[in-house]
Amino acid sequence: MGKNRLEAFSDGVLAIILTIMVLELKVPHGDSFPALAGLLPTFISYGLSFIYIAIYWNNHHHLLHAVKQVNGPILWANTHLLFWLSLVPFATAWMGANHFAARPVALYGCVLLMAGVAYYLLSQCLIRFHRAGSLLGAAVGRDAKGKLSIAIYAAAILLSFANRWIGFGLYWLVALIWLVPDRRIERVMAREG
Amino acid sequence: MGKNRLEAFSDGVLAIILTIMVLELKVPHGDSFPALAGLLPTFISYGLSFIYIAIYWNNHHHLLHAVKQVNGPILWANTHLLFWLSLVPFATAWMGANHFAARPVALYGCVLLMAGVAYYLLSQCLIRFHRAGSLLGAAVGRDAKGKLSIAIYAAAILLSFANRWIGFGLYWLVALIWLVPDRRIERVMAREG
Amino acid sequence: MGKNRLEAFSDGVLAIILTIMVLELKVPHGDSFPALAGLLPTFISYGLSFIYIAIYWNNHHHLLHAVKQVNGPILWANTHLLFWLSLVPFATAWMGANHFAARPVALYGCVLLMAGVAYYLLSQCLIRFHRAGSLLGAAVGRDAKGKLSIAIYAAAILLSFANRWIGFGLYWLVALIWLVPDRRIERVMAREG
Amino acid sequence: MGKNRLEAFSDGVLAIILTIMVLELKVPHGDSFPALAGLLPTFISYGLSFIYIAIYWNNHHHLLHAVKQVNGPILWANTHLLFWLSLVPFATAWMGANHFAARPVALYGCVLLMAGVAYYLLSQCLIRFHRAGSLLGAAVGRDAKGKLSIAIYAAAILLSFANRWIGFGLYWLVALIWLVPDRRIERVMAREG
Repeated sequence: MGKNRLEAFSDGVLAIILTIMVLELKVPHGDSFPALAGLLPTFISYGLSFIYIAIYWNNHHHLLHAVKQVNGPILWANTHLLFWLSLVPFATAWMGANHFAARPVALYGCVLLMAGVAYYLLSQCLIRFHRAGSLLGAAVGRDAKGKLSIAIYAAAILLSFANRWIGFGLYWLVALIWLVPDRRIERVMAREG
Repeated sequence: MGKNRLEAFSDGVLAIILTIMVLELKVPHGDSFPALAGLLPTFISYGLSFIYIAIYWNNHHHLLHAVKQVNGPILWANTHLLFWLSLVPFATAWMGANHFAARPVALYGCVLLMAGVAYYLLSQCLIRFHRAGSLLGAAVGRDAKGKLSIAIYAAAILLSFANRWIGFGLYWLVALIWLVPDRRIERVMAREG
Repeated sequence: MGKNRLEAFSDGVLAIILTIMVLELKVPHGDSFPALAGLLPTFISYGLSFIYIAIYWNNHHHLLHAVKQVNGPILWANTHLLFWLSLVPFATAWMGANHFAARPVALYGCVLLMAGVAYYLLSQCLIRFHRAGSLLGAAVGRDAKGKLSIAIYAAAILLSFANRWIGFGLYWLVALIWLVPDRRIERVMAREG
Repeated sequence: MGKNRLEAFSDGVLAIILTIMVLELKVPHGDSFPALAGLLPTFISYGLSFIYIAIYWNNHHHLLHAVKQVNGPILWANTHLLFWLSLVPFATAWMGANHFAARPVALYGCVLLMAGVAYYLLSQCLIRFHRAGSLLGAAVGRDAKGKLSIAIYAAAILLSFANRWIGFGLYWLVALIWLVPDRRIERVMAREG
């Protein structure tokens, strides 16, 4: 199977996840600014999740860029990633509705952690299918950023019970780490090309 | 008509079905873990349906892989399949909200049964249009797995009134049968190619 | 501008309209069959609208099949069509929730009427842009079916105040007329090709 | 990275935004015309936002038409634009639910203002990446229409506190300005081609 339909399907799911999150920004009762201000936590959660989904879309492209074919395990590793990302709107809404209480903040981290693990598994499936020593293997390499993210998510989940703002702050930290686009694949490809 | 737009439209509908199901995971009141745990049946239903839609997406690709052209009956057989699949979010939500009571479990099976029948009809339309003895005819063959699934769904619907867990368990069994991707078409194509 | 992105965008909007309609099938309270049976009017409305959107998707393809380029007026005529079709989920839900009361049945017809007029305007924009005597002009021709549909919608709206079942039945009649795919374009193209 | 996936992803998000707005047209209680008439403000808001999203889709195409490649900053400028556009359904619903009260009308303008600024930033990123003197630079030029829109939005936000209908009217004015499709790129390309 070619990679095009996998990309198109993943893009479709990510575009829908990105957009239906806004449905959790429920229209407030009344037209006052305090009514609007009550949505601020939900809005901030929404902004963070919007950035995360956009990062996953971006990185997913880079990961599949050096790939031509996909097999069954890759397809299911990709579905597994989409499953955890599909829970982001729910975790976002629960965190926003409870004004960043410790447990929702920790749950949000669990969803990010599982998505991070699923992304790592997907990259491993891709490397295995395209053999070691390949362009992709060299480009994704040890995936230090991916492993670091997973470690920070785990720390954030635990620390959010001590102080929820530490957990929430660490999610922003990981987002910032990834906002710098993953130039590793581009660099290796440019060197070899 | 070429098959590309049929594939793209079906992919779009399946991506949306997959993603809007998560809207049934309503944000619980309060930030306690018991409040979250109350969503567990809905979450398990969601996971099962997510797998089913992903399986249909996967099998739909394999089915259309050996196909070049589509005609009117194929188009409407495909629409018929999408109709039953579009009811999966509803059946999922009813089953989850009622903690796997017998009737919702049976209804979930009815939707799966109708989708299974619709998929079978679609495959027959494709075989008829592309003539017996074709690559597709040989690859899809007697479609033992499809017929077995339909029989299991029918049994599960009836048995769920005796014990709902039998019905629910059988749905997982069919999912497992299909999680092994359909290598028949790939095998025949590799042999002929 | 090429027609590909217009097609892709229209397909996306139609796929979403088709699928979000199911969100109006609200999960009933309780797990009883009477609770489920209460959804029957909404379900029947859903089925009719599903068929209509599928017909529009199908006819939209046939209409654009003979087209290579699109201009500004075509683009906005297409947007105008999508606007009226986007109101189908709302009209469907109101008709279902009120068990086919006269006024919701009439409103449903108004939305279909406007969509029918918008489709006619779109076909005229396409014919004008591609000149008289073209393949498209010969194929779409006088569009007897489109004009007949508009007349039936208008009659159905008025008659639904006398007897709502007449109006509702006429909508099914138009759907049946269109379920026979539009072979005119195919026929002319086969003759000329 | 090629521009195709950026276009496809943006199209997907815009199609979803366009369509989920209709979910805010909540089915009224009862089947009376007054019940329906109560939705008129929401319907008018919906129509205006539908036009705006269609304009953005149209202009986005024209902007990317002369572009072949995209880089990281372009990608994030595009995500930034999609973020503000994703808030249009929320602002639309709040404005409709409060019958065009001053504050919701002003907020609607703020979302349009931010989207206008984001569009301007995106066009600047595209011009910088494709060098001055290029086809795109000449075509987008000083972008007088974009800057004018931003100024009108700012005026509309302030004036809506004096008289909300002035603000609301100015949003329609900007929509009308843009409904004339942006022929600048087409003209320059035709001249050079």
